[in-house]
Amino acid sequence: MRRLVECIPNFSEGRRKEVVEAIVEPFKGVDGVSLLDYSADPDHNRMVVTAVGDPDVMLEVVFKAVEKAVELINMEEHKGEHPRIGAVDVIPFVPVSGVTMEECVELAHRLGKRINKELGIPIYFYEEAALRPERKKLEVIRRGEYEALKQEITKPERHPDVGEPRMHPTAGATVVGARRPLVAFNINLGTDDAKVAKEIAKAIRASSGGFSTIKARGMELKERGIVQVSMNITDYKKNPIYRILEVVRMEAKRWGVEVIGTEIIGLLPVDAILDSAKYYMQIKDFSDNQVLELRLLEMGG
Amino acid sequence: MRRLVECIPNFSEGRRKEVVEAIVEPFKGVDGVSLLDYSADPDHNRMVVTAVGDPDVMLEVVFKAVEKAVELINMEEHKGEHPRIGAVDVIPFVPVSGVTMEECVELAHRLGKRINKELGIPIYFYEEAALRPERKKLEVIRRGEYEALKQEITKPERHPDVGEPRMHPTAGATVVGARRPLVAFNINLGTDDAKVAKEIAKAIRASSGGFSTIKARGMELKERGIVQVSMNITDYKKNPIYRILEVVRMEAKRWGVEVIGTEIIGLLPVDAILDSAKYYMQIKDFSDNQVLELRLLEMGG
Repeated sequence: MRRLVECIPNFSEGRRKEVVEAIVEPFKGVDGVSLLDYSADPDHNRMVVTAVGDPDVMLEVVFKAVEKAVELINMEEHKGEHPRIGAVDVIPFVPVSGVTMEECVELAHRLGKRINKELGIPIYFYEEAALRPERKKLEVIRRGEYEALKQEITKPERHPDVGEPRMHPTAGATVVGARRPLVAFNINLGTDDAKVAKEIAKAIRASSGGFSTIKARGMELKERGIVQVSMNITDYKKNPIYRILEVVRMEAKRWGVEVIGTEIIGLLPVDAILDSAKYYMQIKDFSDNQVLELRLLEMGG
Repeated sequence: MRRLVECIPNFSEGRRKEVVEAIVEPFKGVDGVSLLDYSADPDHNRMVVTAVGDPDVMLEVVFKAVEKAVELINMEEHKGEHPRIGAVDVIPFVPVSGVTMEECVELAHRLGKRINKELGIPIYFYEEAALRPERKKLEVIRRGEYEALKQEITKPERHPDVGEPRMHPTAGATVVGARRPLVAFNINLGTDDAKVAKEIAKAIRASSGGFSTIKARGMELKERGIVQVSMNITDYKKNPIYRILEVVRMEAKRWGVEVIGTEIIGLLPVDAILDSAKYYMQIKDFSDNQVLELRLLEMGG
């Protein structure tokens, strides 16, 4: 089996096309790594890159993209809807095939140390790569975002896992980690009332008592005049997409608001969609083995 | 690119496990052909085998399975809900990768001639492999099923495309052909009234004025005490699964009947499901490229 790791670095730039392209450049035309997707969102002012490839080659390529982002992004001027603490906000590694979670953790630690050593950026480790239990959660590390962390990084409980307790002057701090695959899923609502999105996010997310594998926030998409419940489904096997979507629909009815569309950001495993298709289509006894392409993949692997 | 053809032979045996296993045996452990699925249905008294592989190896393997079915199935004793004219009812070839439709047609013709020559079974060619335009349609060839064809095969308009105009004494006749991928989709309804299924089938199928890529029939599933609209979606790009399902739901309401479940028989291309998932989940701008496994398949291919 080929050794493949997925890496999904998030950069704090979703508006300036030339910066987006410059950051993505190192992922192109490299033997051993395939750039699968990159999507920049101007409201979030953020870009998510998805690449799959050999673990060691991936580390080199991601490091080059980080260098470029640090050169081109100034956090002192950055504004966007999505929480962030640095120019390179978060870099998760996900095991795909022939690679264990432990190897992904080791990869995250290697990359974090190198970024700190060569670029002087303080590093936090999260999820499976966390060195302090409370830092398993990204939102704990990111609390108060760039602006608050700048002040609080000197406090012992907010000291980075690697590096001195001070922000990089323009690139802030970076979170690196390893995790299972997640689904980044946004639900757009036909209203401009941010309160509706915020209330629904509160109803579904783990941190306020909702589904324990959902992280969600409500936000305005001002350019589009609508609001959005933006979420990460951190375990789509426990809470499939359809369940969350239908609960959001149901909650939105309280305000007479409709779901006007949804978005899947970046890549996801086919399972995450098949499972919801089976629900809506009431398909019994369907096996992934009935999907032609999955069988072909198996034959080739 | 690997040269791959899909073959989905349909055998008239869905009850006797040992016969089912004996027919499937030739597909197992062969270099160059992968048995992807086989499902036997006792109500239909029919088994559908799905295999993918090298065209020439596939021809050999399918021929062996045909030999076995001819040895073990006696059409004089066969009863089942599904229309059929022989022990080996129909054998379609479908291009998957690196193989043209023309090559599949040629493969169908070669197999049909061999089955006739070595086993004495009259052969009809259908869909893209048809030699007479009216025989593009399987239902034209199968009109009146085994029992009627036994009488009518002597009439010129029902003469086989290969062989003498007389049925094999126990194995009847066989249809061989080449076609685009189809989706075999069944919708189960919460009633034992066959009329409901028959009326709905009539409403949706091409032959009575419905969707032009749908072949459908209504039938009783006596063992389960329910009825079923059993269909082939011959072009799921023109009529996605969700559209047919929602129309069936809508029509069933006239009788106060609910869809209690659906079934996908055999294999289908992932597209056919993604498309419906996108509808139900209102996903905007989703590309197949966002499906991790499809990207991995592309990388390996």
